[in-house]
Amino acid sequence: MSKFKVKDARKLRVSTPFNFDDSDPRATPGFDGNAKALKKQAKRFDEELSDLQELLFANARALGKDAPSILVVLQGMDTSGKGGAVKSVFSVFDPQGTTTLSFGKPTDEELEHDFLWRIRKHDPLPGQVVAFDRSHYEDVVTQRVHSWVDEAEIDRRFEAIREYEKELADANVRILKIFLHISKEFQTENLLERVENPKKHWKYDDGDVTERGFWHEYSQAYADAINRTDADHAPWYVLPSDSKPYARMALKFLILDELRKMELDWPEADFDPEVERQRILDSE
Amino acid sequence: MSKFKVKDARKLRVSTPFNFDDSDPRATPGFDGNAKALKKQAKRFDEELSDLQELLFANARALGKDAPSILVVLQGMDTSGKGGAVKSVFSVFDPQGTTTLSFGKPTDEELEHDFLWRIRKHDPLPGQVVAFDRSHYEDVVTQRVHSWVDEAEIDRRFEAIREYEKELADANVRILKIFLHISKEFQTENLLERVENPKKHWKYDDGDVTERGFWHEYSQAYADAINRTDADHAPWYVLPSDSKPYARMALKFLILDELRKMELDWPEADFDPEVERQRILDSE
Repeated sequence: MSKFKVKDARKLRVSTPFNFDDSDPRATPGFDGNAKALKKQAKRFDEELSDLQELLFANARALGKDAPSILVVLQGMDTSGKGGAVKSVFSVFDPQGTTTLSFGKPTDEELEHDFLWRIRKHDPLPGQVVAFDRSHYEDVVTQRVHSWVDEAEIDRRFEAIREYEKELADANVRILKIFLHISKEFQTENLLERVENPKKHWKYDDGDVTERGFWHEYSQAYADAINRTDADHAPWYVLPSDSKPYARMALKFLILDELRKMELDWPEADFDPEVERQRILDSE
Repeated sequence: MSKFKVKDARKLRVSTPFNFDDSDPRATPGFDGNAKALKKQAKRFDEELSDLQELLFANARALGKDAPSILVVLQGMDTSGKGGAVKSVFSVFDPQGTTTLSFGKPTDEELEHDFLWRIRKHDPLPGQVVAFDRSHYEDVVTQRVHSWVDEAEIDRRFEAIREYEKELADANVRILKIFLHISKEFQTENLLERVENPKKHWKYDDGDVTERGFWHEYSQAYADAINRTDADHAPWYVLPSDSKPYARMALKFLILDELRKMELDWPEADFDPEVERQRILDSE
């Protein structure tokens, strides 16, 4: 059976200049097997993921502000499976150490502020694993595709994003930026399922078909965003996502890899175990 | 094999006047089986729980402010397993439809406000399932046990809690208040494990042993809180919790029962499926 390795996961990191022709959304690089095998492979990571997340949380209790945290930023075309990917990974974690946010259309209040205002409210606390389902990248992609803002403003935003992510990294936030890469044909299937299956109707937004008309413009804007913000402290990974089990497995592994790289230990006791043992027994 | 039924779960609702002698923390009422059988039983609820939570979330998309939500309030002595219980249930749900909060010692800012100020910030949004690990009940229990506030203030707080919960219920929030009931002997075991196992040291708080000296006062204060705030729109359930698998299974079932009682349907499409199908195909 195929086994997905660290080097396979790390290869999903983009090489800049990146363009989407470099990545085949139908492929499953580093893994040779069907959906069932992929799910089995992903399940193998669960125990270690759960243990390491607890370890990270425990470290934050002991180290306070100096403990690391993880921020996973997920982007992708409509129906690329961002929500499902978050669910599959975060269901393994203890909710007390994680936060997941979905950034939808900005509210009127949010529009009155700088685009990063609503994002910065959710800077990861030490020891937390945070996922953004959509993010500040919408402000340099969707808004650009529709020319809602001019190019000078786009330039300014890229600069602000680079500064923001550098600031997070300096505060010991490990950033993973993930693009779930699907083909237009796979989107067709997904959209059709949403209109054909009554249990999926609520997920259907007729605006998605309109956005689809801008597929090429979106691809260009995303590639540009990736090229202008990829950095070792805030790397972009493009995951082929026509196979949802593959994308989920790869995402799990990337987060696991990040947790492993922290090389955390259990915090030392700030009490004398023998003394406390006796206190407990005496308090019967 | 034993099967836990709706009537068994509902029997865990307190009858007032309640006192803790009415409940045996070592028992597993309604279930005759070991930990393994309990876990198996709990797993059987997972699929339905996950489906109904999605249905609830979908309804909120369609109904907006009129959609119901669920608030689970968890209380219990130290080491009673509140965090683990939240994890075991909420790992089944889609994180985008759930929020879990841990209310620790109030911050200075929180202390400057009324005790409900920090709680009200997290009123459940329509369609959400929210868990409070500790809650406003700390303010009528812990603070009372230590006489940090006088009895007139405690009376005022009970009145405020009753009003607050009524207000939530009127806004279609289904409230479940859960007390995880452990014996003092079980707490001894749990505390000893935290000092003996280096991987659990971070969970140990030497203040817990001090609080243990007030076991009787805590029991009295909790019983009083339960008696003064139990209501059909905000019921209290006392779950025997010396068996963690039992408590988790029962909690899952109570939430499942609440979701079932909503009798939700998939929201109707606000679009013409045939028209949209064609639009999708035309947009290839």
